Amino acid sequence: MENGSRKWCFQGNQELDQKSDVTIRTVLDMLLKNLNKDDSRPVIPLGHGDPSRFPCFRTAAAAVNAISDALRSAEYNSYAPTIGVLPARRAVADYLSRDLPYKLSPDDVNLTLGCTQAIEISLSALARPGTNILLPRPGFPYYEARAALSRLEVRHFDLLPEKGWEVDFDGVEALADENTVAMVIINPGNPCGNVYSYEHLKKVAETARKLGILVIADEVYDHLSFGSTKYVPMGVFGSIVPVLTLGSISKRWVVPGWRLGWLAISDPNGILKESGVVKSITTLLNVSSDPPTFIQGAVPQIIENTKEDFFNNIIGILRETADICYDRIKEIPCLSCPSKPEGSMFVVVKLNLSMLEGIADDVDFCVKLAREESVMVLPGVAVGMKNWLRITFAVEPSSLEDGLKRVKAFCRRYAKNE
Amino acid sequence: MENGSRKWCFQGNQELDQKSDVTIRTVLDMLLKNLNKDDSRPVIPLGHGDPSRFPCFRTAAAAVNAISDALRSAEYNSYAPTIGVLPARRAVADYLSRDLPYKLSPDDVNLTLGCTQAIEISLSALARPGTNILLPRPGFPYYEARAALSRLEVRHFDLLPEKGWEVDFDGVEALADENTVAMVIINPGNPCGNVYSYEHLKKVAETARKLGILVIADEVYDHLSFGSTKYVPMGVFGSIVPVLTLGSISKRWVVPGWRLGWLAISDPNGILKESGVVKSITTLLNVSSDPPTFIQGAVPQIIENTKEDFFNNIIGILRETADICYDRIKEIPCLSCPSKPEGSMFVVVKLNLSMLEGIADDVDFCVKLAREESVMVLPGVAVGMKNWLRITFAVEPSSLEDGLKRVKAFCRRYAKNE
Repeated sequence: MENGSRKWCFQGNQELDQKSDVTIRTVLDMLLKNLNKDDSRPVIPLGHGDPSRFPCFRTAAAAVNAISDALRSAEYNSYAPTIGVLPARRAVADYLSRDLPYKLSPDDVNLTLGCTQAIEISLSALARPGTNILLPRPGFPYYEARAALSRLEVRHFDLLPEKGWEVDFDGVEALADENTVAMVIINPGNPCGNVYSYEHLKKVAETARKLGILVIADEVYDHLSFGSTKYVPMGVFGSIVPVLTLGSISKRWVVPGWRLGWLAISDPNGILKESGVVKSITTLLNVSSDPPTFIQGAVPQIIENTKEDFFNNIIGILRETADICYDRIKEIPCLSCPSKPEGSMFVVVKLNLSMLEGIADDVDFCVKLAREESVMVLPGVAVGMKNWLRITFAVEPSSLEDGLKRVKAFCRRYAKNE
Repeated sequence: MENGSRKWCFQGNQELDQKSDVTIRTVLDMLLKNLNKDDSRPVIPLGHGDPSRFPCFRTAAAAVNAISDALRSAEYNSYAPTIGVLPARRAVADYLSRDLPYKLSPDDVNLTLGCTQAIEISLSALARPGTNILLPRPGFPYYEARAALSRLEVRHFDLLPEKGWEVDFDGVEALADENTVAMVIINPGNPCGNVYSYEHLKKVAETARKLGILVIADEVYDHLSFGSTKYVPMGVFGSIVPVLTLGSISKRWVVPGWRLGWLAISDPNGILKESGVVKSITTLLNVSSDPPTFIQGAVPQIIENTKEDFFNNIIGILRETADICYDRIKEIPCLSCPSKPEGSMFVVVKLNLSMLEGIADDVDFCVKLAREESVMVLPGVAVGMKNWLRITFAVEPSSLEDGLKRVKAFCRRYAKNE
């Protein structure tokens, strides 16, 4: 019996492979393969929002000590309860309640493996046959991939570049029908770097209420705002419309590798409980992996012991690098930036292909940029914006200057002779 | 606009709630609610396999130091690559290869959030419309729950108590058809505490090959064998049939709360790659949460620096408690144990209800036992064996003696007067 001739009954799940084809990871992996190993210059990673490798973005010592203490206590080697250990849920509830007009209880907080598992659980809990969800364009492609795996139909509403990436409410109302269950808001914005005003978020809440849908508020970049608009959590409007608040310590504490996030029920009227959504969330958490118990155990001390100085310092650097990014991009003729970033770690810029020669599209731009300049930038197609680019400014200022100088040289090299 | 009168379009996913109804967690949560708070005696947890709270099962200091060092190095705060950091994958590949007739490469190893995520990924990768999978009965209900979520049909083959819980191969052959993709083997056995011989595993491989299906080898209790049968990994037969090897540091290092596991491709002929299964596993890992990066970073040192003494000590305690468990159960007339446990942390015992008065079934037995004796034991129905019990012996010996004494008193109290 030869292996070659054996008929095997199993095979991969191609439907799934196709559905989850485009994620930021797959696109960045493709770019990585295009790097030129003979280039002696350092690779400048402007493709993803993870500045933790840069010394100036080093996390708070208090956070490291909290994890180490929890680990060494030997009290957190066991399995955790389904929705997380109580002191950690209480700490997150109190942390989020600081900015809300009502108080979350520990039972409103589910601990998750970073914000990504919170997204996965939210979409799976809402996905019944025939239902659809409204996602922003541009957005974060993990939503599309997880919705496809949950068989939840996706409909895209636009964010309007000329209006500071505000939601196109006419579009939202036109898309929604009786099978629409939720709309997603990412604030501070990924990929746009915008921060929504109180008034705009209130209008989101009122629109969702009118349509009878809930709001999934992706606040993984919570408090990372450094412009004129103050960050307001969507949960502030929880009495107008039920909100699922998704968050994490990944960005504010600059520890995306620690995988500690939450899915909070910001719903003072108890509508999500009544409608069975909370029950389905618990069901899913029952059959999902948990954040490591000792990381959960450290959460109260991480939150309590991290000083304002640490946060202020990070905000200061991001403000500086956002300025650098905006100013340098203005100097590059084929790139244009609709508005200066005020939050998160990103900006999206439009690529004027008519000014370039030998560049087919945004992917081609990014592949050649990686190959020739060792600079990683995310093609806009990965976030729903063909022929745009997403650039992160959350890197060491000198690296950012270096990277954008290389982008400029690259664009000059490919510029059409007028 | 009153909230009460508002029509909302979303609701929970009841189909999902029903499908994932019975897990060990949900059953134990139910028992926990039945504990009597006025009982001043300590609760004896014989319901789940997590001895990490007991001092005699404290994990190796080397493992704690490895995590702490990785954390404090600040080199592992970033996102990890999809399938895990290379040194960790290499360390696991080498660790598993020690017991194999061929060598796994780092690319054969995918790091997962404990063994549970490895189960989730394996089943999702294989689930195409119409396919089915063969699961052991008794077994581990997480498989049934995840298969339901992936729409993978489940068919159960029996493990034979009178034959040391060996696989009923006639049953396997009768169940399989052209839509069967895999069979699951849990060795050392959960819930049965058995360890399969080399010859029996070879027959599993040959049967699977004949049927054209792959073997999912759940080896989360790897090396935890203390009887006359030596532990052999299923991957030894990888050249007969492709094997997905699922494992973790949870049990052998007694750190289930650390959530570090793996899904290894034990397939020297490359059949799983050729058939697209490896691709689908990567796709799924791309859209799943990873183990925290600093825990991944610690894996090489955890494996390298943990001394044989540590493992020998754990095996010694388990051998002792397995003996205590078997001997004490023999003294309880209404319980019978088909064979002495030789591995893992469990034994299943048959409940002779005809000898008891006022006990309806296994669930009723466990609820009353929790309420009246503060002893947690898992009803067999949770593992597919109605009116049996799953008891863990992985607790401090004195606690085990105490717990089984209470079980004996309980059974005597409910014994029928002959």
